[in-house]
Amino acid sequence: MRWSKSHIYTLKDAPNDAEIPSHKLMARAGLIRKVAPGIYTYGNLALRALRKLETIIRQELDSRGCQEVLMPMVHPAELWQETNRWKEMGDGLLKFKNRNGQDFCLGATHEEVITDYVRKDVKSYRDLPVNLYQIQTKYRDEIRPRFGLMRGREFIMKDAYSFDVDEAAALKNYDLMYDGYKAIFDRLGLQYRIVQADAGNIGGSKTHEFQVLAEAGEDHLMVCDSCSFAANIEVAPALSANQSQATASGALKESFATPGLKTIAALSKVTGVPESKLVKTMFFSTNSGLDPKDTALKPVAVCLAGNDEVNPIKLKNVLGLANPPLLLTDEEVRQVTGASPGSCGPVGLKIPIYIDSAMAGFVDFIVGANTDDQHLKNVNIGRDFTPAKTADIRLAKAGDLCPECGSSSKPGHYRSVRGIEVGHVFYLGTKYSKAMGATYLNTEGVPTPIEMGCYGIGVSRTIQSAIEQSHDNDGIIWPRAIAPFDVHIVVLDPDQEEVRQSAEIIYRDLQAHGLDVFMDDRAERPGVKFKDADLLGMPVRLNIGGRGLKEGVVELIKRKDKSMTKVKAEDATEQTLALLKSL
Amino acid sequence: MRWSKSHIYTLKDAPNDAEIPSHKLMARAGLIRKVAPGIYTYGNLALRALRKLETIIRQELDSRGCQEVLMPMVHPAELWQETNRWKEMGDGLLKFKNRNGQDFCLGATHEEVITDYVRKDVKSYRDLPVNLYQIQTKYRDEIRPRFGLMRGREFIMKDAYSFDVDEAAALKNYDLMYDGYKAIFDRLGLQYRIVQADAGNIGGSKTHEFQVLAEAGEDHLMVCDSCSFAANIEVAPALSANQSQATASGALKESFATPGLKTIAALSKVTGVPESKLVKTMFFSTNSGLDPKDTALKPVAVCLAGNDEVNPIKLKNVLGLANPPLLLTDEEVRQVTGASPGSCGPVGLKIPIYIDSAMAGFVDFIVGANTDDQHLKNVNIGRDFTPAKTADIRLAKAGDLCPECGSSSKPGHYRSVRGIEVGHVFYLGTKYSKAMGATYLNTEGVPTPIEMGCYGIGVSRTIQSAIEQSHDNDGIIWPRAIAPFDVHIVVLDPDQEEVRQSAEIIYRDLQAHGLDVFMDDRAERPGVKFKDADLLGMPVRLNIGGRGLKEGVVELIKRKDKSMTKVKAEDATEQTLALLKSL
Repeated sequence: MRWSKSHIYTLKDAPNDAEIPSHKLMARAGLIRKVAPGIYTYGNLALRALRKLETIIRQELDSRGCQEVLMPMVHPAELWQETNRWKEMGDGLLKFKNRNGQDFCLGATHEEVITDYVRKDVKSYRDLPVNLYQIQTKYRDEIRPRFGLMRGREFIMKDAYSFDVDEAAALKNYDLMYDGYKAIFDRLGLQYRIVQADAGNIGGSKTHEFQVLAEAGEDHLMVCDSCSFAANIEVAPALSANQSQATASGALKESFATPGLKTIAALSKVTGVPESKLVKTMFFSTNSGLDPKDTALKPVAVCLAGNDEVNPIKLKNVLGLANPPLLLTDEEVRQVTGASPGSCGPVGLKIPIYIDSAMAGFVDFIVGANTDDQHLKNVNIGRDFTPAKTADIRLAKAGDLCPECGSSSKPGHYRSVRGIEVGHVFYLGTKYSKAMGATYLNTEGVPTPIEMGCYGIGVSRTIQSAIEQSHDNDGIIWPRAIAPFDVHIVVLDPDQEEVRQSAEIIYRDLQAHGLDVFMDDRAERPGVKFKDADLLGMPVRLNIGGRGLKEGVVELIKRKDKSMTKVKAEDATEQTLALLKSL
Repeated sequence: MRWSKSHIYTLKDAPNDAEIPSHKLMARAGLIRKVAPGIYTYGNLALRALRKLETIIRQELDSRGCQEVLMPMVHPAELWQETNRWKEMGDGLLKFKNRNGQDFCLGATHEEVITDYVRKDVKSYRDLPVNLYQIQTKYRDEIRPRFGLMRGREFIMKDAYSFDVDEAAALKNYDLMYDGYKAIFDRLGLQYRIVQADAGNIGGSKTHEFQVLAEAGEDHLMVCDSCSFAANIEVAPALSANQSQATASGALKESFATPGLKTIAALSKVTGVPESKLVKTMFFSTNSGLDPKDTALKPVAVCLAGNDEVNPIKLKNVLGLANPPLLLTDEEVRQVTGASPGSCGPVGLKIPIYIDSAMAGFVDFIVGANTDDQHLKNVNIGRDFTPAKTADIRLAKAGDLCPECGSSSKPGHYRSVRGIEVGHVFYLGTKYSKAMGATYLNTEGVPTPIEMGCYGIGVSRTIQSAIEQSHDNDGIIWPRAIAPFDVHIVVLDPDQEEVRQSAEIIYRDLQAHGLDVFMDDRAERPGVKFKDADLLGMPVRLNIGGRGLKEGVVELIKRKDKSMTKVKAEDATEQTLALLKSL
């Protein structure tokens, strides 16, 4: 493609709403242009990257027996009502009425539509397994879209769904997709980790996320500094490196005045007890809010060490809820305990109390007295209050022991990194098939719910994550697998007939060797062209100019480190191919 | 692809809502499954046909210097308000509010979005021309979707938009796209006609439609039986083969009683004047209805020969309206004329009167008297009433003279055929660029509105139109260019190891020669497989069975005429390639 014939415009400055490098670079390189918040037009260069990624995905999935279909973007409410997600998905699901007054939504995910598609035809165990996928535009009504394609409203996904006779077969498909995803992300040449994660409200019980490592990533990951263990902080098990082994003194609990001490930090300062040995008590409502008639709080208390934080996902799972429970307001806490939050504790409460396992060994500790400006000391678990359950409820921290190798002779510890979720694999079980009556007749002729899995890759997000991971101050450094073009030719003197001719010959020769070639033949100064070439970031650049050609040479530049080699003009193709191969 | 590993299910019976052959066949062959009225999931076979068509489109457009981009499906109201189409498009444009209360619509077409995209970067005449296209899902909120993909709500379009410095350049791009479309539809091997058409409310002044000929087509076309002239009936010029040349008698107009004669047929019966010599008068409102405060009727009258019909599109264009005017109700006619519609005529009316050119030569004719149960005879144009304009307002008919060759020594006449509109090219002019401030600086540095064109191909509709044109009682007959597979292998005795092996060898060998091969390896009876093969309709079928292999032969069948040749098993690939080449 010739730049002079293309609608490609670079920007000196990124738009004001671009906060992270990849968003800035995508806008500056003309890959995307904003149409509305979270909604973009993809320029030709972005589309080329998307198509290359889509081709890789198709190759890997087709070779594993998956079949591509294409489902609609507009879904009838009826299907989503069958699984109750019409309500459960909340405002993220964009709903509307058509001109005939019927309810529809924009597809944010396609479990309902694919389950409906499959249940129409699958009758018997002989019709299974099935593994279908699509690459398609989806829409989620984000309140605050940001970071370009990373948290957009309209985005491109590859979503796959497997259908099997039983759990063992479903987990086989799960492993197949897990391997397929590894193959895909390996081919992209991205640094990524496969992490344990929470299944969320999509259902299911086994899931892994594929996370591209990048500082600007929205996901917080815990990775072991010794073994390959990695988990999203949402579910990362928290094992303290130093567990308390103390014995209770036997002293009875005793109230003492703590006027104005409303925080753990203030309490620690006055009492001299380190925050890690204090106990904080927090209150949550377990009412899901789905039934507007049910306004009961259904409160629970959670106790944990003063320097720890509650992990809402873990708490959700401990409580068996669909969504993380909401913190009570100060007023609601007072209703439940009779005191303001800073003076509350577990002793004497009539509601279920959950304690974090990191404080399970605490003895003779201090808690709020449920009377304003009063605390209790010498409190002990069991004697002074009875927990409903002791569980891992806190957020893991860097330095915590690795759950895989933490008890070995060379224990590993958590390191905290950021990631961009670009893929996930879920084992769904029968949540959707049961709700939607998607059954098959088993070998005994008994109708049986189909076991399902679902598998997503954020196609547009993956493109941006590659840029987020691979760029420098001057621009994008495309991994070759998804680079819009392999080679960027800069024609330095397009007004010289000889230069134009030589460039044309090399341009065509590279194409004849199967390469995707972009040629900057604009009437611009070399400085402008070099800057643009660095910004657009194709893996290899060729500078072709009058001065070089007089010596019979052109300049071959590797974008990654900007190393330059002069090569004979007639060897340009061969040397370019060799350089590309080495990347 | 092996059928045993595929999610492909044929149906014995078409769904009840399938009215035309192609819709029935697409459903029966499992190409589409309904999700909601006018909304479908495309199965793997349909997707393969779509992808082949998309590839052909991309090749032809890219080779003509067009560039692919991808615009969003969800559009902000602001862009559509700039051109006033937010209002003008009416209920066909599906509008909704997002969770933040902002107005959006689903993209039914993309003139606004692409003009916004281009105006951001195009500054000078040096940035033009630009020709951008996308292949994308669109949504139109049809009241009564029908005929499967033919008049669906969600559908796939290729839409292209050109941007030029002036009309001459824009028409050059128009011709380029016209030729590109010819190349595309020629490659598909479809019978089609390029017809003149109405530009509708999309703006613009020059347009052609690409119509695939098929009995079930929704469009009515007039084609010359002698030359290549063809036009959509919406705009087909109506030239009567026998124009009246009579002279007025001089008799004065005279009222006579016509009790109960409310139709032209009844009037003709009683008066003995043929319907073709009677005059009917019709009344329309020229109020567009766009301004709810303006409730004035703004009526006009139209006179035409009793056996002709008003062409609403021609009338719209004669009146210079954006949309066809609405017929007045009986009550409204009475308000305007003082009589019911069956007794109305042009004499004495205070509103503009338009007369069709086919009655311009009428003398001493009969019209309604604008008094109930009264008509006037001996009425003459000019003497008794003065038309605002004489113009071609009627629907053309089979037998009318061809406007191209109708005055030659061997005049051609119209033949009436049906078509499916699969493509259109429009010269838009500056309608959108002016409304949206999309200007460039010309060579004198003066800001100038960009000249635009737009060009669409109904991608999903083209697939169905191919089936509508090419099928028989047993199923689809795919044109090779978009056939999901080139070859359909029927394994007749899949339980025989030798047959399986031979089939496998031929299957792989055909693939190695670059063919797309589908193999029916299911454990089904031959009769079932033959029926399914005819239904799915791949161009060439190979029957491989135990009996044939004993003689060393397989059966090679051309789907089109079901002609069968026995060929040596070892020649199967060669013979298949030769047969495909001959199609």
